[in-house]
Amino acid sequence: MKKITKLLVANRGEIALRVLRSAKEMGLQTVAIYSEADRNALHVRYADEAVCVGPPASKDSYLRGDKILEVCRQLGVDAIHPGYGFLSENAEFARQVKEAGLIFVGPSPEAMDIMGDKLSAKQAVQAYNIPLVPGTAEAISDVAEAKQIAQQVGFPILIKASAGGGGKGMRLVHNVEEFEEQMQLAINEAVSAFGDGAVFIEKFVTGPRHIEIQVLGDEHGNIVHLFERECSIQRRHQKVIEEAPSSVLTPELRAEMGRCAVDVARACNYTGAGTVEFLLDDQRNFYFLEMNTRLQVEHPVTEQITGLDLVKEQIKVAQGQPLAFRQDDLSINGHALELRVYAEDPQNNFLPDIGTLTTYVRPQGPGVRVDDGFEQGMDIPIYYDPMIAKLVTFGATREEAIARMLRAIDEYQITGIQTTLGFGSYVLRHPAFVSGNFDTNFIKDHFTPESLKPAAPDEATAKLAAVLTAMLLAEKKPGFTAAATEAPVATGSAWKRNRLGVR
Amino acid sequence: MKKITKLLVANRGEIALRVLRSAKEMGLQTVAIYSEADRNALHVRYADEAVCVGPPASKDSYLRGDKILEVCRQLGVDAIHPGYGFLSENAEFARQVKEAGLIFVGPSPEAMDIMGDKLSAKQAVQAYNIPLVPGTAEAISDVAEAKQIAQQVGFPILIKASAGGGGKGMRLVHNVEEFEEQMQLAINEAVSAFGDGAVFIEKFVTGPRHIEIQVLGDEHGNIVHLFERECSIQRRHQKVIEEAPSSVLTPELRAEMGRCAVDVARACNYTGAGTVEFLLDDQRNFYFLEMNTRLQVEHPVTEQITGLDLVKEQIKVAQGQPLAFRQDDLSINGHALELRVYAEDPQNNFLPDIGTLTTYVRPQGPGVRVDDGFEQGMDIPIYYDPMIAKLVTFGATREEAIARMLRAIDEYQITGIQTTLGFGSYVLRHPAFVSGNFDTNFIKDHFTPESLKPAAPDEATAKLAAVLTAMLLAEKKPGFTAAATEAPVATGSAWKRNRLGVR
Repeated sequence: MKKITKLLVANRGEIALRVLRSAKEMGLQTVAIYSEADRNALHVRYADEAVCVGPPASKDSYLRGDKILEVCRQLGVDAIHPGYGFLSENAEFARQVKEAGLIFVGPSPEAMDIMGDKLSAKQAVQAYNIPLVPGTAEAISDVAEAKQIAQQVGFPILIKASAGGGGKGMRLVHNVEEFEEQMQLAINEAVSAFGDGAVFIEKFVTGPRHIEIQVLGDEHGNIVHLFERECSIQRRHQKVIEEAPSSVLTPELRAEMGRCAVDVARACNYTGAGTVEFLLDDQRNFYFLEMNTRLQVEHPVTEQITGLDLVKEQIKVAQGQPLAFRQDDLSINGHALELRVYAEDPQNNFLPDIGTLTTYVRPQGPGVRVDDGFEQGMDIPIYYDPMIAKLVTFGATREEAIARMLRAIDEYQITGIQTTLGFGSYVLRHPAFVSGNFDTNFIKDHFTPESLKPAAPDEATAKLAAVLTAMLLAEKKPGFTAAATEAPVATGSAWKRNRLGVR
Repeated sequence: MKKITKLLVANRGEIALRVLRSAKEMGLQTVAIYSEADRNALHVRYADEAVCVGPPASKDSYLRGDKILEVCRQLGVDAIHPGYGFLSENAEFARQVKEAGLIFVGPSPEAMDIMGDKLSAKQAVQAYNIPLVPGTAEAISDVAEAKQIAQQVGFPILIKASAGGGGKGMRLVHNVEEFEEQMQLAINEAVSAFGDGAVFIEKFVTGPRHIEIQVLGDEHGNIVHLFERECSIQRRHQKVIEEAPSSVLTPELRAEMGRCAVDVARACNYTGAGTVEFLLDDQRNFYFLEMNTRLQVEHPVTEQITGLDLVKEQIKVAQGQPLAFRQDDLSINGHALELRVYAEDPQNNFLPDIGTLTTYVRPQGPGVRVDDGFEQGMDIPIYYDPMIAKLVTFGATREEAIARMLRAIDEYQITGIQTTLGFGSYVLRHPAFVSGNFDTNFIKDHFTPESLKPAAPDEATAKLAAVLTAMLLAEKKPGFTAAATEAPVATGSAWKRNRLGVR
């Protein structure tokens, strides 16, 4: 067995800190890297050692695999955890790590190669009868041929860049008339974003829910799934709220999707933690989308319902340890939700809102977990993803997890920056979300900037005001006087700052 | 069913805030009370309304049941949660609450009367064959008679005040020669502390572990137990570290103690959340000690392993709802630990160390929960219990819960006040604790003020220093330079504040 003693985390922000925490709990020595913009970041202060690898831009620092390997050589590092984003899905980097005699905490470069390309991924899973969205089997660039296939599949259809991700190079085409123009736009976008203009064509699924299955494999051929995450609440094709389990899956469907996810992992001899993404339509048919060959942003919801620490599992697998459990040992306990708290303005099309966290106080108490990389007074750097924190809540039931999330949002005190906290509160109170009857169109269908406008004082507040007025007019009792509430504020409204009538 | 709409929390500090959080999650309106010393306390800011009930001294504020009932009348409160301490075990107050037409979130005054007196408690459980520590069946004040009983039971014996608690009025007597003097001292102490000189005599149990069972009963005759808490790590007969499950119980012993605890609750028609305390000797014989008729300080460890919110369960029972589960539905999931972070100096006999929290930053991340009532800049008032926070960690195994506690202690940043954090770290690393082979004498057997003196720099640190020196002497590579670690600090040592060599 390959024992890891010193781990370098090739990432920043909340995920770097989160990985460092697990490494510390395992007794590993830890090394952080950072760009000049992250000099004072929490992950830098938390690691045993920290090394600056370059200027703020990611391409000059967090993406500089050569510098990172040089740090490893100098500090005697024996393993690298890539987190998510940056170099985490770069098979070439994983290969270099291996060649340098180090352990890459992730799957093999070969598995990354297969799953890193949508087309090769689909080819790899063919032998396992994994359901795919109807469309082109291979990447295509001939517009006329593509048009013919689109007509066979039936409109609406999606055009997607073969090398794409995060919605880039993706086009929805409603009818045959607009097909040619949209295909050309998709090709142009794909070339500029990924340097690769190949696209494929897919049936557009109606009422789609984004359901993904967490898998975990070891180097001894064992692969299990850790159930699903429901990630349908998205803006700009990017997730904002995730939960586990999904309220739409039956036990049978869960087991079937789980089996499929394990087969997808088996198709590329997957090791470590990975995620198999599916689209579920309004008839509960599911289709394999892609596999993410890394730790997922939303992995904490799976940790909360399974009791497993996924980072520790990744590290154990990377050391060659066999999984300590089989599929039958695993079960779902309770319900977990994650809200991504972004420095974005939901009332302005979720545009990033960069600045200083002038107030930053996290919620606490039962059933609340905050994964972040900031503290009060810090700036949100303009160079990276504008996520401030992942607010995770869990409870015995979905209702309790939602109630705790609303309570935690109310407690969260953030000033100086617009965030998605209020948006989260809106979604979690919306009847469509509460009933579980929603899909990836939730924001389009149910949200406008006006949704967050403060409502008129409600009846309860009005009644309270009346009581207080009456009390103030009445004889003042020595020993106690009622305090008044103030108007709700954007964040941290659980905390009343000015109380009237305090004796 | 009696629906609660507005709940007053007759308490302060972390427990008031913790109860308010659950009440808020249930959609209740909330009222806090506070003394003049707690004007700026978090529980005051968190409640919908807050009322000052008097000067700092508890007897003039938090113990003033009459004022609290007046607040209820004025603000239309329909239920009172007493927390722990203060009025929580005062049957007379519970009676007044009931007579005022309000709901007391706790057991009936009759159950409190029975269990509030050690003697009547023992009499009540006699019909259920609950094992008791050998000794006097009734309170006794005749020294000669007591001496004879002590000789029959066999030394060493304990003399305990009938109305006692928290170690007050308790005397350990090693042999017959010192009996008379010690008994007189115990009587004097009991009279001065409780106004009642009755004592009883018990066999002194060797290698004793303090194991308590959480029970929960409803108004429909259903009573379940929620497994045990191990509370043997105590200083001055008061708990510092608790965990669930206990590493010493077999499934059979757990089931047997659980059945006994349910019988104890049945003996007084108990409703709501209560705790049955047992002493377990080194032969795994257990003896009923007493029942606490309230929420326990250490209830969070039970919440973490069962997934239940005990405060919500209390409120549901108080509304007349039947329990939503039976004994067979309940199981233990994972392992949880609680460290009570006191403003005390472990190097000075755990004397309270009152002052200002000049730095106060809580640990975060997976498996960590902090229940507290303070924030940075606040004073720890001299008038009340010096507990700053309850640091709770949980994981899949005991080892993981311990590793997380050590990690969380390292992250916790508290300056301005001495705390029990370093003491906690010492205990959790001690072989006796790690192996599970400890009893209530842990501190006496294994701890001296010198235990917390900083050790010499260890080998790893020395090696690191050598590497860094070598690097600083070597050619400086542009783009990255290693940062050095600093010497460990008392709290928050996970965070390095000054890093050398940062480019």
